[in-house]
Amino acid sequence: MTILETQGLAARQAARVLAVAGSARKDAALEAIAAALERRSGEILAANQRDLEAARAAGMRPALLDRLALDEGRVAGIVDGVRQVKSLPDPIGQTVKMGVRPNGLTIGKRRVPLGVIGIIYEARPNVTVDAAALCLKSGNAVILRGGKEAFHSSSAMVAVMRDALEEAGLPRDCVALVNDTSRESAQELMNLTGYLDVLIPRGGAGLIRSVVEHARVPVIQTGVGVCHIYVDGEADLDMAARILFNAKCSRPSVCNAAECVLVDRSVAADFLPMAWELLRTKQVEVRGCDETRAILGDWVRPAVAEDWDTEFGDYILACKVVSGVEEAMDFIAAHGTGHSEAIVTNNYFTAQRFLDEVDAAAVYVNASTRFTDGGEFGLGAEIGISTQKMHARGPMGLEELTSSKYVIYGTGQTR
Amino acid sequence: MTILETQGLAARQAARVLAVAGSARKDAALEAIAAALERRSGEILAANQRDLEAARAAGMRPALLDRLALDEGRVAGIVDGVRQVKSLPDPIGQTVKMGVRPNGLTIGKRRVPLGVIGIIYEARPNVTVDAAALCLKSGNAVILRGGKEAFHSSSAMVAVMRDALEEAGLPRDCVALVNDTSRESAQELMNLTGYLDVLIPRGGAGLIRSVVEHARVPVIQTGVGVCHIYVDGEADLDMAARILFNAKCSRPSVCNAAECVLVDRSVAADFLPMAWELLRTKQVEVRGCDETRAILGDWVRPAVAEDWDTEFGDYILACKVVSGVEEAMDFIAAHGTGHSEAIVTNNYFTAQRFLDEVDAAAVYVNASTRFTDGGEFGLGAEIGISTQKMHARGPMGLEELTSSKYVIYGTGQTR
Repeated sequence: MTILETQGLAARQAARVLAVAGSARKDAALEAIAAALERRSGEILAANQRDLEAARAAGMRPALLDRLALDEGRVAGIVDGVRQVKSLPDPIGQTVKMGVRPNGLTIGKRRVPLGVIGIIYEARPNVTVDAAALCLKSGNAVILRGGKEAFHSSSAMVAVMRDALEEAGLPRDCVALVNDTSRESAQELMNLTGYLDVLIPRGGAGLIRSVVEHARVPVIQTGVGVCHIYVDGEADLDMAARILFNAKCSRPSVCNAAECVLVDRSVAADFLPMAWELLRTKQVEVRGCDETRAILGDWVRPAVAEDWDTEFGDYILACKVVSGVEEAMDFIAAHGTGHSEAIVTNNYFTAQRFLDEVDAAAVYVNASTRFTDGGEFGLGAEIGISTQKMHARGPMGLEELTSSKYVIYGTGQTR
Repeated sequence: MTILETQGLAARQAARVLAVAGSARKDAALEAIAAALERRSGEILAANQRDLEAARAAGMRPALLDRLALDEGRVAGIVDGVRQVKSLPDPIGQTVKMGVRPNGLTIGKRRVPLGVIGIIYEARPNVTVDAAALCLKSGNAVILRGGKEAFHSSSAMVAVMRDALEEAGLPRDCVALVNDTSRESAQELMNLTGYLDVLIPRGGAGLIRSVVEHARVPVIQTGVGVCHIYVDGEADLDMAARILFNAKCSRPSVCNAAECVLVDRSVAADFLPMAWELLRTKQVEVRGCDETRAILGDWVRPAVAEDWDTEFGDYILACKVVSGVEEAMDFIAAHGTGHSEAIVTNNYFTAQRFLDEVDAAAVYVNASTRFTDGGEFGLGAEIGISTQKMHARGPMGLEELTSSKYVIYGTGQTR
């Protein structure tokens, strides 16, 4: 047995205990984790210093160094997150539906944990605790495999969590960290069938593509978003400009940010200059079609084919003039990633058609795509945003980390 | 582009139309299919004759020949199946939940089709129509890849269905058949990412293992069942014997049949001879542990390790005496396939514990495992029984062939 298989087996055994632990015990463990993270924040910060020193020595960019860094305030934020997850309703044991069949069998469908969840992520040490808390609350054991840049931080936090689990009377192996950050360990985790029920990658497009490509365990694909705002010929143009500005500029690095605006030809000459008045305040780089350039000017960089399929994650906006909702929807079908898509329109029928026909995790009328988020959708917290259609689609909260089983109460029935 | 990629693209385009076709048009298409299959049954039977002749020439076993054979009665049964699926409620467009957020956004979760479903199956020609009808009703385009033994039958039925779709005003490509029954075509279908949203294998354990092992598109694993009946120390032994006999003998070839009985030591000497009185009427071969042999006699074949993990699919029963519910549940955790598990007991607490702690798609108290079936569970029809935890678990009806999307009604909200 490899080290990872041994961890997998231990996680499976822990998951059997956790599945029937009940809300009170799980909540007590989450409180113990929160308290221990507070009490032992010194250890965590010291470990984080080691990561930061190594990262600086390796010449990591300041933006990435900032993502990696922890301080008392950030640890407090992580602890708050654990307590917030603790306060959410426990999905496990809920009966989704139940009824009596003509033969007298009472058949119920009950929410149960998935079992053992693997999380592959990159350099954000907070994911270590956030993901573990969501998995624990939903009754799942978790095997974490973080990036090598945050290895000492993650190790320290996992050690604290495992001690707290034991203190609360649950198996330490409910939370485990892969102790090897090589490419080979990631590959082995992706093939840990028989131990892992699902693998969730959290990180950039490259990581997600690699996991989807190489994993043999079931994967939930998260987070790639090439999102569009379509400004209809009957839009409130002022509203459209504010929505576009928000969707592009409020946080360009996230997956629910807009990458492309599609503008109905009949309003393009009015709308584009209005939108630019806002976008220019953030020095947004526009990459436009010929008509966009004819309206806004030659300073607009001509869009090339790959611009229509790129998640810029930056203050860059692709811009295309279209003949109406039909062309907009065809364009979205061809270039969208099924994440979040929005129309701005005053026309009832156009709005309904867009909602019906656009195939994405979240389809908006007259609102910014930036709302696609577990907190904003009222799920309390999220482990990621699924852009696949199987199992879960859109923001994934606690319910999306569950499966179901049928429970059947008989009185001797045979078939 | 390969032939299969061309088919995949055509299916994707058809799926976009089908997704918004509405119940009335889909039902009209299903009725057109039923009528066309009736009207053109001669073509189908002639094609089936070609398959049967080839199969006889190749020396196919009589049981398999029978599964391959169609006649007027069987075609009528297939047609009835289509009309039954037509009569089921359409899951598409149902709003699963909807509410207003504090910022005024109205957020609803709506059921939508998965998109394009691939089905890989073996020599049962009826699967061709059954699977297509379920996919169409749930708004999904389908690419069928049947076994080479039934190729002419499947081709004839798909041709009839495609004509009927066109007649009803829907794209022919809502239903397609892979025209190549080589191993390579199956492999290509398993890797048709970008076109297929999900692949469902229907058939024997070998087929399912191969698909799970080799597919890069998401798979729903169906149908492998090593199911147990645990006879508790406080069971009604007469009821237990009837349930065991039914679970083992009513149809031993199916996945919800029992393969193993676990008997509490305190009742084994009473129960085993009672059970044998029923089992002997079907000449069931018992493979038992030492204690079983001590009670029933030396004629019982000694069970070897692999008997505890085998889906016999035949009149063969593994039998083990255990120390109680704890050992039974540990044994089920080690040897079950997560399909259907049953306890027979009069004890309330033991029953609840078994329901809570056994991890399977369906967990029964005092009833036969044979009820794990879409029809029996009230789903109307099923495309298979999922033994995985992701997306769907247990019998899969129309709802399990759907995904969801969030629809968000705004009034200009930005974040």
